[in-house]
Amino acid sequence: MSKLQEIQKWTAENHADFAYISNPKTIQYLTGFYSDPIERVLALIVFPDQDPFMFAPALEVEAIKDTGFTYPVYGYLDHENPWKMIATDVQKRVASPKNIALEKSQLTVERLEFLREIFPSAAFNLDITDFITQLRLIKSDDEIKELEIAGKWADFAFEKGFAAVKAGVTEGQVAAELQYALMQNGIMEMSFATLIQAGAHAAEPHGATNATKIENNELVLFDLGTVWNGYISDASRTVAVGKPTDKQLDIYKVCLEAQLAAQDAAKPGITAASLDKIARDIIEKAGYGEYFIHRLGHGMGMSEHEFPSIMEGNDMILKPGMCFSIEPGIYIPNVAGVRIEDCVHITDDGCAPFTHTSKELTYVG
Amino acid sequence: MSKLQEIQKWTAENHADFAYISNPKTIQYLTGFYSDPIERVLALIVFPDQDPFMFAPALEVEAIKDTGFTYPVYGYLDHENPWKMIATDVQKRVASPKNIALEKSQLTVERLEFLREIFPSAAFNLDITDFITQLRLIKSDDEIKELEIAGKWADFAFEKGFAAVKAGVTEGQVAAELQYALMQNGIMEMSFATLIQAGAHAAEPHGATNATKIENNELVLFDLGTVWNGYISDASRTVAVGKPTDKQLDIYKVCLEAQLAAQDAAKPGITAASLDKIARDIIEKAGYGEYFIHRLGHGMGMSEHEFPSIMEGNDMILKPGMCFSIEPGIYIPNVAGVRIEDCVHITDDGCAPFTHTSKELTYVG
Repeated sequence: MSKLQEIQKWTAENHADFAYISNPKTIQYLTGFYSDPIERVLALIVFPDQDPFMFAPALEVEAIKDTGFTYPVYGYLDHENPWKMIATDVQKRVASPKNIALEKSQLTVERLEFLREIFPSAAFNLDITDFITQLRLIKSDDEIKELEIAGKWADFAFEKGFAAVKAGVTEGQVAAELQYALMQNGIMEMSFATLIQAGAHAAEPHGATNATKIENNELVLFDLGTVWNGYISDASRTVAVGKPTDKQLDIYKVCLEAQLAAQDAAKPGITAASLDKIARDIIEKAGYGEYFIHRLGHGMGMSEHEFPSIMEGNDMILKPGMCFSIEPGIYIPNVAGVRIEDCVHITDDGCAPFTHTSKELTYVG
Repeated sequence: MSKLQEIQKWTAENHADFAYISNPKTIQYLTGFYSDPIERVLALIVFPDQDPFMFAPALEVEAIKDTGFTYPVYGYLDHENPWKMIATDVQKRVASPKNIALEKSQLTVERLEFLREIFPSAAFNLDITDFITQLRLIKSDDEIKELEIAGKWADFAFEKGFAAVKAGVTEGQVAAELQYALMQNGIMEMSFATLIQAGAHAAEPHGATNATKIENNELVLFDLGTVWNGYISDASRTVAVGKPTDKQLDIYKVCLEAQLAAQDAAKPGITAASLDKIARDIIEKAGYGEYFIHRLGHGMGMSEHEFPSIMEGNDMILKPGMCFSIEPGIYIPNVAGVRIEDCVHITDDGCAPFTHTSKELTYVG
């Protein structure tokens, strides 16, 4: 059964007249077509017992057809009212819809109000978000292959980035070198803004790459990812320039131990919360618990923030095909920040990482 | 009056117990702090007669304080329930809120349902979106200065990109060269994915830069922009490699005439729709009307899709401080695509562009 047929079946089982799919990532997942329509309207309308249709800005219609979407695609021009047009297209199929399912995690309140206006006799209680989340939670072999290629390009980026590090160079210059190398190879899109943080700057876990100069005898944190056919990579490494202090080396050792222990323990049957605890216990025991201020990991696939969330309180049992990051971090203000991260997929008896750059402390520069 | 005080005044005038501001761009506009929290919760809570507070992921709290936000900032950890915490923080100030204003253009239906749960006796009818849109519609002198700097970097990118064009080079390589030059100068972020399209590929107005090779005797379309202090640039140029055909030269001439006529006519008092019509009439008269399939322009500032929208049906009267693109395009399948675009701000008696790269047809390669 295709993914789109799974959605059709869900609408039938939930007695929806149709599902209004509006998350561009979901549309990509179901059809292969991706576009961020920003403020324009893009929707995939899925019925229980009729063919679906896509509604899109006119200037996207050709691109949608080019991806092999064989059902009708209706375009609207910028000065036309998309809501009235959607109503007309729906009413040709269902005269008076009573029950409409939404992606409530993505649809805005404003757009729900537009839908209420055009379908005044419909209820909007059904939320298809969880079903789609569950579908996307287990990656197929084809998806794993795309994620592996995205991971290879992250490894390539580390190699180029490490080679660019030396005392006196700015964080931004290192990011420029590795992204240029990627672009020369046709990898035009990063999955998020490349993060290079040197020395104490790395103790800000959500800081940004800036003009901070790399100095001798410190650690430099890399967090980066690429996009390949709509699938992403995301990995972190922390490298040494010159001779870091004993304290910095100790932080690294503890963070690595936590990362390896968690990656070793990731297998079918363990819960997300238990995995988080394995890494957290090691860091706490070493006395750095207060400096590990985020969850162990996040799900990933078509974006870097999917399910499962690897954190305290999440009793989800890990299963083959689930993909997520394992990224313990220790951030001590004014001293250093260390994060070591691989994304992995759960296999039949363990897990396999998408990135393979060595995690032993690497000396560069 | 500060922008934040304007919001306070609006909540008082509209009898809101508070406004729940959730659009990251609005938060940046009001406070200077920007972060895309993705699936985490970031909100600015503004009361009519008490100090506002920010609620954010714990790992953002320091960054928020660093931007100079002097009011309370409350952080939550990944495993904590942000909604319960927001309820507690609000109830210390307003025991039982009855009237809560939202940014309905950004808040998801799912999050509204969470807010309904924690504030069961509140109404959520008030929408502050339009008020914020109106505030953001007229740029201050300080904002214009940021936009001018972003524009200068777009001009720089054109210069580097044009120099990289020659027969046999791919679109992607040209994008790589110009982005590398920007990154070497500390400009790490583009406002959208750089678009380089050669020959017939440019006839797909929403296509993407790919491995298409530039050939001799064709046109190459550039559409790009940078980010500077949260403000963007966005400009398009179409250049010639070798000798384009007479047809291609004619398309260029007509598109340029339309662009210049509209830019010349942009001044206080004219409506957005009239401006669109000036460009459209020229293109229609030349026989290319069916190939100009988008509006003349979009508002811009902190993003490339703000107001005013320069299109048929929009009777908004242009006023000093409004910023938008003027970007006619002619896309003839299998022949060529031409788009020429400057973003401008309306002045007291006309308009001024943010980009200054020549619009006469430039021969490169």
